[in-house]
Amino acid sequence: MTHKTLNDHLNWRYATKKMDSAKAVPQEKVDAIIEAIRMAPTSSGTQPFELIVVTNPEIRAQIAEAAYGQAQITDGSHLLVFAAWDNYTAERIDEVVQLNVDARGDLSTLREYYDKLKATYLPREADENYAHAARQAYIALGVALVAAAEQEVDSTPMEGFDPAAVDKILGLTERGLRSVVLLPLGYRDATGDWLLPMEKVRKPRETIVTQVA
Amino acid sequence: MTHKTLNDHLNWRYATKKMDSAKAVPQEKVDAIIEAIRMAPTSSGTQPFELIVVTNPEIRAQIAEAAYGQAQITDGSHLLVFAAWDNYTAERIDEVVQLNVDARGDLSTLREYYDKLKATYLPREADENYAHAARQAYIALGVALVAAAEQEVDSTPMEGFDPAAVDKILGLTERGLRSVVLLPLGYRDATGDWLLPMEKVRKPRETIVTQVA
Repeated sequence: MTHKTLNDHLNWRYATKKMDSAKAVPQEKVDAIIEAIRMAPTSSGTQPFELIVVTNPEIRAQIAEAAYGQAQITDGSHLLVFAAWDNYTAERIDEVVQLNVDARGDLSTLREYYDKLKATYLPREADENYAHAARQAYIALGVALVAAAEQEVDSTPMEGFDPAAVDKILGLTERGLRSVVLLPLGYRDATGDWLLPMEKVRKPRETIVTQVA
Repeated sequence: MTHKTLNDHLNWRYATKKMDSAKAVPQEKVDAIIEAIRMAPTSSGTQPFELIVVTNPEIRAQIAEAAYGQAQITDGSHLLVFAAWDNYTAERIDEVVQLNVDARGDLSTLREYYDKLKATYLPREADENYAHAARQAYIALGVALVAAAEQEVDSTPMEGFDPAAVDKILGLTERGLRSVVLLPLGYRDATGDWLLPMEKVRKPRETIVTQVA
């Protein structure tokens, strides 16, 4: 097997428009993608989101309805739902502190760090904290898109859905979560996908990169 | 060279606390990281952010001052500043349409798609559009963190800074940009970094992943 680089993966992947409903992604590939999401870096290591892995066809059909009928949700074999914390709470941060204590020992610098974090986060509005948590989920989304490509699994990041409806279908509200972004996994329908033969479009480097030397 | 996987990269990297100020990242490695950022997927392919690559030591010292003195900004050799669009505008979206037309031809489906996008984005408040653009920058941040690790370059994602001050230092406001996140690049100071010997902390899979089968 040739060694593929990150840029090979980024060039191979595309926002798949038509998935082959006859092909399921093997569990070990799904596991590798989930593991990358779990290991993705987040602000202060809080990992302020959860991942819902939906295979149930009826539930996916309901979610597709709440997402303008986008067929990748049901034609793919797995739907990843990134769901961010609706707020930072003392309890949630204390769980992160405990994980750190368990792995690294009970260090005063560590406790002071997270005490300061609480002093910053807890007085803020829930919406501001949710927005921050959602950004962390987007770091994991970026990593997940690379992970899927490395596994030669197709994926389609989706923001076009009714979050309140998806929260209701999955019972996220009562768990203090809000759906942020969807990522169906599956395999491209090589003959049925109009986007596949099209050239990838990206801005030239000079239009988005400035040097301050 | 052994073939390293994405998960190897995610395990190797950490939020470097102390950079070795004597070592600079070679240009070809910086270029590979920039290329990954350029190729990162974004919503509707808008790439609604720019990347400022700061090597100038005085400017980096000013930015460090606006970032609680975090020394990685000056001890590293390159500072990446992700700066998102302050708003979506017709002109900015038209540029994306033009890029698509140039690469794929003048397709009516394409024009209709971006007309709908304008109808959604343009009436919205600037803050809502900025928040959306900033999330896209976080996808690229996730990809950049993988890219740096692949290049065996250390990096430290930073949200702790005064965005208004950084916008002023870099003249971003007049360009319609707002600084979102900083990413110093450099090489770890293997003896001076207190975090390096510590175990990586991540939540167990069962605490953040739910199956709906």
